[in-house]
Amino acid sequence: MSGMITLLTDFGLQDGYPGIMKGVIWQISPGCQIADLTHDIGPQNVLEGALAVGRAYTYFPAGTIHIGVVDPGVGTNRRPIAARLGRYYFVGPDNGLFTIPLQAALAKNEPVAVVHLNQKRYWLPEVSASFHGRDIFAPVAAHLADGVPLDELGAPIQDMLRIDIPQPQRTDDGWRAHILHIDHFGNLATNLNASVLGTEQVKEIRCLGISINEISATYGDHLSGELIALFDSGGSLSLAIVNGNAAARLNARVGQIVDIYL
Amino acid sequence: MSGMITLLTDFGLQDGYPGIMKGVIWQISPGCQIADLTHDIGPQNVLEGALAVGRAYTYFPAGTIHIGVVDPGVGTNRRPIAARLGRYYFVGPDNGLFTIPLQAALAKNEPVAVVHLNQKRYWLPEVSASFHGRDIFAPVAAHLADGVPLDELGAPIQDMLRIDIPQPQRTDDGWRAHILHIDHFGNLATNLNASVLGTEQVKEIRCLGISINEISATYGDHLSGELIALFDSGGSLSLAIVNGNAAARLNARVGQIVDIYL
Amino acid sequence: MSGMITLLTDFGLQDGYPGIMKGVIWQISPGCQIADLTHDIGPQNVLEGALAVGRAYTYFPAGTIHIGVVDPGVGTNRRPIAARLGRYYFVGPDNGLFTIPLQAALAKNEPVAVVHLNQKRYWLPEVSASFHGRDIFAPVAAHLADGVPLDELGAPIQDMLRIDIPQPQRTDDGWRAHILHIDHFGNLATNLNASVLGTEQVKEIRCLGISINEISATYGDHLSGELIALFDSGGSLSLAIVNGNAAARLNARVGQIVDIYL
Repeated sequence: MSGMITLLTDFGLQDGYPGIMKGVIWQISPGCQIADLTHDIGPQNVLEGALAVGRAYTYFPAGTIHIGVVDPGVGTNRRPIAARLGRYYFVGPDNGLFTIPLQAALAKNEPVAVVHLNQKRYWLPEVSASFHGRDIFAPVAAHLADGVPLDELGAPIQDMLRIDIPQPQRTDDGWRAHILHIDHFGNLATNLNASVLGTEQVKEIRCLGISINEISATYGDHLSGELIALFDSGGSLSLAIVNGNAAARLNARVGQIVDIYL
Repeated sequence: MSGMITLLTDFGLQDGYPGIMKGVIWQISPGCQIADLTHDIGPQNVLEGALAVGRAYTYFPAGTIHIGVVDPGVGTNRRPIAARLGRYYFVGPDNGLFTIPLQAALAKNEPVAVVHLNQKRYWLPEVSASFHGRDIFAPVAAHLADGVPLDELGAPIQDMLRIDIPQPQRTDDGWRAHILHIDHFGNLATNLNASVLGTEQVKEIRCLGISINEISATYGDHLSGELIALFDSGGSLSLAIVNGNAAARLNARVGQIVDIYL
Repeated sequence: MSGMITLLTDFGLQDGYPGIMKGVIWQISPGCQIADLTHDIGPQNVLEGALAVGRAYTYFPAGTIHIGVVDPGVGTNRRPIAARLGRYYFVGPDNGLFTIPLQAALAKNEPVAVVHLNQKRYWLPEVSASFHGRDIFAPVAAHLADGVPLDELGAPIQDMLRIDIPQPQRTDDGWRAHILHIDHFGNLATNLNASVLGTEQVKEIRCLGISINEISATYGDHLSGELIALFDSGGSLSLAIVNGNAAARLNARVGQIVDIYL
């Protein structure tokens, strides 16, 4: 068996840490295919990591093992875990990084099994206090890819940690949403999803002193420089500047309020 | 059959979009080998993307499928295309991104076949308005890699779009070239190629207020900090500072004039 | 045979140069697995590259071929080399980039064999003056991965270049170390390793005007924002700010002095 593994971390690319994790994986499971999701999660920003996991994990083949390492508690007694959540596996610290696949699996009554990693024979012989990505998570994922059953890797737990993913609030005349993610293009994705909004007609969107009166179907129907609202590729109501950078123009930050009037 | 695919986009690496495309490819063609060319093309900069395609595509095995997504018109009626151009395949928006391989194939009388992608059974079931890299181009390329013939993917077209790649102009006493690309080292590559210049003797190069009187064979023959002209690894006449950054020192920008006197 | 190759360069990711090297490798050795270590070594910074090689190379399977290209002398008469150093192969310029594996292999009496690459039939047909990563090192590594013996690639040499890796100095009351590496998190790794320090008790660490009186086991036992000393994942005595950036806070630079009092 030769599996598929993805890597998501806050390690950045300059120091070679993600490459080292690939070496560790290939020592155990030489044919394993590995894709980088991103290594540019903000340092120790578990929520940002959890959202990135949520955007990506379902696009991989069933059985893919997603390693996530955004790990402010590395070296403390926070638990290292591996989990089967629906059709995918996840390996990383027990700090909420996998909240979205856990909630999705529970909501759909899909299989959920989580173990507290404690079988050191599946780790590197020496475990550092600060690089469990290399010493625990990469080798455990490689053994999983190689066919070791989840329940051999650790002891079952029922209380895997979740974090709060900020939700939009219903208001008298619409929704109060927040900027949840600012992407490479400077597009501002809110936490209000098309599926939540349903068929309700949006009259106005207000955010950072600006106002938008319609939701556009696509960027290309507008002039360069125009500020528009649209549903992004994940279904999130988003603000964008056509061929421009909305985050820079509006000086926007994650967490700021976006009010939607119906 | 298990093919080879490259990815070139303006998506950046922070959000995980290129990783998501790999997942989509591997769902369809699990053994496919994927190389990232670059994801740091300037947002919506089709010319910069076209030049990066041109620098890279011939170095891959014949049959490699190059996905390019720099796509300001995503979601509009710009056509999604797949093309066989010479020994390679290309998948992306019809906006000129593949101008260089098209011109090369035509010039060499190599095979040219282009289809307007319209067979939705080879796409993801749901197509967003803003991420055709994930929803159309990745799955189409994966099906190509998996052996689906080009002409099953769409309808033949004869008018694939090209963009103007700026060309150097002959002057009374030489050439007027332009800075076409500034690389990671701050080297300034012009659009005057060694093959165009031929055996003519260069007397002087003037650019941004500076003057250079010879073309050097290599960096290493000069002192650190010296400004030199040389032909770069693609054959372009280039300006560089030995162990330094010419773009920063000269405050150079793409498009600026470089005069060559013979 | 289908081997494993890693890439470490100062090329950055924007221009597509590392992707081009993958294409060259796959033309020669199509099934080869390739991992990027890092392409963000500071331009021409051979010491930084050598340290990154040292951090990573042992984590890959025996027989892995590590390509390293940080090459200020490209195009001059500095030698291109390939080497077997212990359980690994290395391909790149002869400028000290592989000093750490050479010293380790010599110290452990492991096999050491180095050749000056001069067999042009294993290179690309045309060799540029500035991109030997593409024209010499990638094809040579691919041929090695494909089973060509090391001694067919060039002529044996005994005088492979080494650079000085700065060492800590013993003082009357402890050690004078230096900041050797600043990582993505802003952690400051010194050149004093736990194995050198042994069981001696550290009383005080002084650096950049600050003083620390203990070595911590891990980040997570301290409050956010606290400045701590600990041994990092490579065993180096390091200074870090919990959930923060020590380099930014202390305005630290590679080479600065760290005094350790015992």
